[in-house]
Amino acid sequence: MPGFALEPFLAEQQRRVQGLLADRLGAISDRVPPRLLEAMRYSLLDGGKRLRPVLVLAFADAVSRASGGGGHLADDAACAVEFVHTYSLIHDDLPAMDDDDLRRGRPSCHVAHGEAIAILAGDALLTEAFALLGGRGEAEERSALCRELAVGAGATGMVGGQALDIADDRPAEASFLLHLHRLKTGALIRAACRMGAIAARGTPSDVELAGSYGEAVGLAFQIADDLLDLTGTREEMGKPVRADAAAGKPTFPAVVGPGAARTLADERVARAVAAVRVLEPREGPLAALARYTVERRR
Amino acid sequence: MPGFALEPFLAEQQRRVQGLLADRLGAISDRVPPRLLEAMRYSLLDGGKRLRPVLVLAFADAVSRASGGGGHLADDAACAVEFVHTYSLIHDDLPAMDDDDLRRGRPSCHVAHGEAIAILAGDALLTEAFALLGGRGEAEERSALCRELAVGAGATGMVGGQALDIADDRPAEASFLLHLHRLKTGALIRAACRMGAIAARGTPSDVELAGSYGEAVGLAFQIADDLLDLTGTREEMGKPVRADAAAGKPTFPAVVGPGAARTLADERVARAVAAVRVLEPREGPLAALARYTVERRR
Repeated sequence: MPGFALEPFLAEQQRRVQGLLADRLGAISDRVPPRLLEAMRYSLLDGGKRLRPVLVLAFADAVSRASGGGGHLADDAACAVEFVHTYSLIHDDLPAMDDDDLRRGRPSCHVAHGEAIAILAGDALLTEAFALLGGRGEAEERSALCRELAVGAGATGMVGGQALDIADDRPAEASFLLHLHRLKTGALIRAACRMGAIAARGTPSDVELAGSYGEAVGLAFQIADDLLDLTGTREEMGKPVRADAAAGKPTFPAVVGPGAARTLADERVARAVAAVRVLEPREGPLAALARYTVERRR
Repeated sequence: MPGFALEPFLAEQQRRVQGLLADRLGAISDRVPPRLLEAMRYSLLDGGKRLRPVLVLAFADAVSRASGGGGHLADDAACAVEFVHTYSLIHDDLPAMDDDDLRRGRPSCHVAHGEAIAILAGDALLTEAFALLGGRGEAEERSALCRELAVGAGATGMVGGQALDIADDRPAEASFLLHLHRLKTGALIRAACRMGAIAARGTPSDVELAGSYGEAVGLAFQIADDLLDLTGTREEMGKPVRADAAAGKPTFPAVVGPGAARTLADERVARAVAAVRVLEPREGPLAALARYTVERRR
C-alpha cells in the first residue's frame, strides 16, 4: 500500500494550528492583564506536537467530505482542545504536582512566570476554551462541543486521571494503569476526535467511530510516551526523563515489560486504523496519525 | 414602602441551592476518584452565602413571569456559577496565591486535602461547570450561557482580576481598585444575573438590565466586603481579616476613606434597585438582594 506522506501534512497542520492559536489569543489580548497574557502566550505558542488539534481538524476534514465542512467551528474546537491541553501541562508541572522545571525544552511556566501567575494562566486557558466554544451561531454543535470537552477534561476524564496519578498508593497493576491512561491521556484525545466529527456535523455513527479511534490512539500514545521515556534523553524529549521511575511510579512498560507494551500499542493502532477505514478507504491522515503516535521519536 | 422579607426567602433559596449542588455533584460521583470527589464536595457543599446562584435563580424567576420559566436550565446555570465561584476560592487560598488557611470557618481546601488535590478539585469544579451548561436540549440558551460564564470567569473577567490583585506593584489608586473589582468580583456576579435572564429566555433588554444590576451590585458587594474586613473579626467572617492591609494591599475604603466607600456602595445599590423596577414594580427579591449586599454582617 503506498503510504500517506505524514511529515509534510503534519508540518502544514502544525503551522495552521499555530496560526489559529495566535489568532484566538490575539482576539482577547487587549483585555487581558499583560503578565497573565504573557504567561498564557508563553505556554500556548511554544510549539509542541499539536496532536490533539490536528486530530480535531483531521476528523472534521474527513467527515466533512460527506457532510459539508467543519470551517470556523472546527477551528474553534481545535483551539479549545489545545487550550485545555496546555492548561493541563502548566498545572501538572507545578511544584505541588509533578514539580517539573522543564517543558518542551524550556523552563516550565511557573519557573518562567512564577507559581501564582502559572496557576492563573492555566485557569484562564481552561476557561477561554469554553469561551471559544460558546461563540455565536451553530448552537446545537457548540453546545455538544462544550459537553464533549468538559466531560473529557473534567473529574470523570483528564482531571480524574491526574488525581489517580498523583496518589502515593498507586497500585503497580496493568489494569490500574490502563484505567489511569484512559482517563489522564485518553479522555481528551478521544474528545478531540469526537469534536472534529461534531464540528463537521457528522452523523452519530461518525462521532462514535471517531471516539473509538481516539480511545485506541490515546492508549497507544501514552504507552509510546512511556517507552520513549525509557530510552530517550532529556534533550531529545525536551523534558525530564524517567521521572516516574525516580518517583517510584511504575509505568505500563515497567509492569508488563517493554515488548508486551509495544505489542499492545501496535494492536491499538491497528484497531484505530481499521475503525477509520470507512472514512478513509485509501490510507490518509487519520491512519497515518494513528501510526505516528507509536512511531514518533519525541 | 413595605419591605420584602429577605431572610426567609434567602434561607429557602440557600437550601434550594444546596440541594441542587448536592444533586449535580452526586450525578457524577460514581465516576470520580474518591479523593478528588471528597475535596470537591468539601468546598462546594460547605455553606457559604450562595449569593451568585441565588441571583441566577432570582433573575430567572423574575424574567420568567413574562416569558415562561427558567426551570432545569436555570438550575444548571445556578450550579455552574457556584461551581466556578467555589473553584476560584480554592485556587485563591493556595499557598502560592493568597495563602489563606481558613475559609468559611474551616480549614481551606489545600489545608484539609493537600495542595495537589486542591488544585485539581478547583480545575475539576471549573470544568464541570461547563459540563452542566453543555447538557442536552435548549442549545441556543446553553451555548449563550457557556459564553457568558466563560467570559465572566476568564482572562478578561475574574481570572484577569485575580492576576491584577496579586501583582506586587498594585497602584493605590481608586480608579485601579474600581477596575480590579469590576473584573475580580463584578464580572462573575454580572454573569450570574445575565445567566438567570438567559436561562428564562429573557429578551435582550432583560439580559442587558440584569447585567447593569449585576455590575452595580458586584461593586457594592466588594466594597461592603472590604468594609466588613475593616471592622469584623476572624470568627464573624470565617476567614482571616485585614489580610490585605497586612500584605500591603490598600483596599478601596483605605484609599478613599470608609465614609466615601460606603456612600459609593449605597449609590450603586440604589442604581441596581432602580434598574430592576421594570421587573419588580413592587419591591421583591432582586431589590432586597441588592440591599443585602451592603447590609449583611458577613
